[in-house]
Amino acid sequence: MNRPCINLAVAGFGTVGTGLAKAIRENAEWIGRRLGKTLRIHTVLVRDIHKNRSFIPDPDTAFTSDPETFLNTPDIDIVVELMGGTGLAHEIIARSLTMGRSVVTANKALLAEHGSELFALAARNHAGLYYEASVAGGIPIVQTLKESLAGNRIRNLLGILNGTANYILSEMTAKGLDFQDALAMAQAKGYAEADPTFDIQGIDAAHKLTLLIRLAHGQDYPFADLAVTGISQVQALDIALGGEFGYKLKLLAQVSHTSGKLLAGVFPAFIAKNHMLAKVEGPFNSILLEGNVVGPIMLYGQGAGDLPTGSAVLADIMALAKNPTTPNNTGFPEPVLPAADILDPMLSLSGHYFRFSVQDRPGVLSAIAGIMGNNAISIAQAVQKQTDDPAKGVSIVFLTHKALLRDVKKAMTEIDACDFIMAPTVHYRIV
Amino acid sequence: MNRPCINLAVAGFGTVGTGLAKAIRENAEWIGRRLGKTLRIHTVLVRDIHKNRSFIPDPDTAFTSDPETFLNTPDIDIVVELMGGTGLAHEIIARSLTMGRSVVTANKALLAEHGSELFALAARNHAGLYYEASVAGGIPIVQTLKESLAGNRIRNLLGILNGTANYILSEMTAKGLDFQDALAMAQAKGYAEADPTFDIQGIDAAHKLTLLIRLAHGQDYPFADLAVTGISQVQALDIALGGEFGYKLKLLAQVSHTSGKLLAGVFPAFIAKNHMLAKVEGPFNSILLEGNVVGPIMLYGQGAGDLPTGSAVLADIMALAKNPTTPNNTGFPEPVLPAADILDPMLSLSGHYFRFSVQDRPGVLSAIAGIMGNNAISIAQAVQKQTDDPAKGVSIVFLTHKALLRDVKKAMTEIDACDFIMAPTVHYRIV
Repeated sequence: MNRPCINLAVAGFGTVGTGLAKAIRENAEWIGRRLGKTLRIHTVLVRDIHKNRSFIPDPDTAFTSDPETFLNTPDIDIVVELMGGTGLAHEIIARSLTMGRSVVTANKALLAEHGSELFALAARNHAGLYYEASVAGGIPIVQTLKESLAGNRIRNLLGILNGTANYILSEMTAKGLDFQDALAMAQAKGYAEADPTFDIQGIDAAHKLTLLIRLAHGQDYPFADLAVTGISQVQALDIALGGEFGYKLKLLAQVSHTSGKLLAGVFPAFIAKNHMLAKVEGPFNSILLEGNVVGPIMLYGQGAGDLPTGSAVLADIMALAKNPTTPNNTGFPEPVLPAADILDPMLSLSGHYFRFSVQDRPGVLSAIAGIMGNNAISIAQAVQKQTDDPAKGVSIVFLTHKALLRDVKKAMTEIDACDFIMAPTVHYRIV
Repeated sequence: MNRPCINLAVAGFGTVGTGLAKAIRENAEWIGRRLGKTLRIHTVLVRDIHKNRSFIPDPDTAFTSDPETFLNTPDIDIVVELMGGTGLAHEIIARSLTMGRSVVTANKALLAEHGSELFALAARNHAGLYYEASVAGGIPIVQTLKESLAGNRIRNLLGILNGTANYILSEMTAKGLDFQDALAMAQAKGYAEADPTFDIQGIDAAHKLTLLIRLAHGQDYPFADLAVTGISQVQALDIALGGEFGYKLKLLAQVSHTSGKLLAGVFPAFIAKNHMLAKVEGPFNSILLEGNVVGPIMLYGQGAGDLPTGSAVLADIMALAKNPTTPNNTGFPEPVLPAADILDPMLSLSGHYFRFSVQDRPGVLSAIAGIMGNNAISIAQAVQKQTDDPAKGVSIVFLTHKALLRDVKKAMTEIDACDFIMAPTVHYRIV
């Protein structure tokens, strides 16, 4: 069948680019039937055109290492940016949009840090800027927030958005591993990169959360203002102790909408083992939303990988190929979204888990409990554990009723200043 | 702010209609911001205009009981059909589409039985025919299949699509209730209607599956050709016995794509307790998809109710209000989809659960095992249980490795003809 052809210019041909090209070839006939058009990878921008590649999209695909040649290729319908980073990728996206070309990208870091400028540029040039692949791989969360839940106020969004961190915590939980061993395992399996900083420090999840906040609330929450805690300090002991109380530790990204303000952050937290998100193991991602009309909705799938991410890129390409003239980039018609009305994360209210390392002597428990009480923190459960080494003292674990994070931090500072404290107190929220 | 107005004509003002109207009022400002337009319920068609209503959309909403008045109301942008049934609803949708008006409906029965004709009519008149609310309430499965996974071949789709049946099975499982008691409980809680036939016989799930097959595969699978088994024969005993082996019984809708053909059906089946779908309890729905690019994806949420369903109707209205000129109804540009290439459901391959009620005498086990072996069915686990009443004999439970349903049915016929069989054999697939 002779179908009109959509010419793609793809910047970057690593894991995701190759996954996309494979999907386009594998499902060519199917895509043609769905779209009434054929997708063709016309030009690819790579660092080294002489590199041996295991997969070539098409015999007549042009490979170039020159960004100018790439940008000036005529007859391109959609530019696909899969290089990552905020340097050349930024320039390629901005210049493509300025030319009126629609762009599909998986670049969460760029959109988290420069989204406001790029979406305004897209709006001025009536171009699409689509990014389903930038959050939670193949899970259609961007589309769901832009379209399916458009009539909802999203009261609460809770996500497991980083597969590497989730894999590490899952392995620590299942096997009692230390963080470093679980990280090494994730690296050996290809789930973690050589430099895992973005994943384990929560930065990658925070980039994604910034995009989700924009989609769910139509507000620009500056990435730099997000409260972010990673998982590199997590100890196997706390995972085990939390487990005894019926909880699992997960790296969560959360934004809730209360009294017209946004409360957001990325942090490791305990969730009940029978919570749907607690079942999300290994490299999987999931997002649980609470809409004021729809109620709870959960989406689940692979958060990374060549094909899952390629699937999301492909969905964006097909959406723009089908409807090139009226793109819906942010989910809001305004060219520039207002700045977020931010609630201090210290005002977040939740249960809390504490592990105090204390000297084994009378009066300690009552001193800690006293400080908690003075800070309006009510204790729900407590347990005292011997440590292996008597010189390390004993562990006292407290689980509290709901309390303000601000009060918790204040209490911790007071408690950690006491002479019976032998190591800094460990604290996690219970969500 | 003065925004252009989208006039809605709503046929039927029961649970979902009221939910929709409440959502439109509650989120009016938000919807206006998302859309750049205002939604207004202009005209409502009801059976009795004198009925006392707890909620009125707008002081100037016109109520009529005359379909002709409703259909001929001028200046209507979108017709919303929420009456249900295949009589007047059919006429209203067909005539509205013929007038070139776009239609949003939650009517799964109508689209399952007359979808082919109605989608062709919509295509001829360049009108939208949207139906997110007709499958799995507020879960955005229609949009996901039409757009987000458009580039995927869906190898397997497994859904819990009927909240009533799932609630009944959940209660039977959690409390050891008999079917009739659990059904009465579902009716008392408002989860089951006075006539629960469609829900408990699997017909409602089969209607929804017909729509999902069309969306995922672009083929018309005649509703009447679907193999459908309901849950009214399910006994608490088998739920308990399956539970001992680590399984939960769920009413599943499944379509898989193998060797270019579709294998589909609705049936109660055992799934492993640690399977994601096994966690879907009570009135919730969930769909697990396996795409050839994206891998596994799961969506979860409330499958019914005024607001969740209203949320889906609202999403369709907003999509059509935003983009009225190029609707995407079926996910395929063809005006008429081809007939499905159907694989005989008897060729489905899975594990199986059997409970044989037999006389307690020597040779029975070996006779049954012999018939199984002759039919190429390999036994994975077996257990023999005393019944409360010796006169009822004993229960023998077999769990098998993967076997063809055809062979299983043949073996059951042979076994049930044996003189030691005291009651018809109970059989479920293990998915």
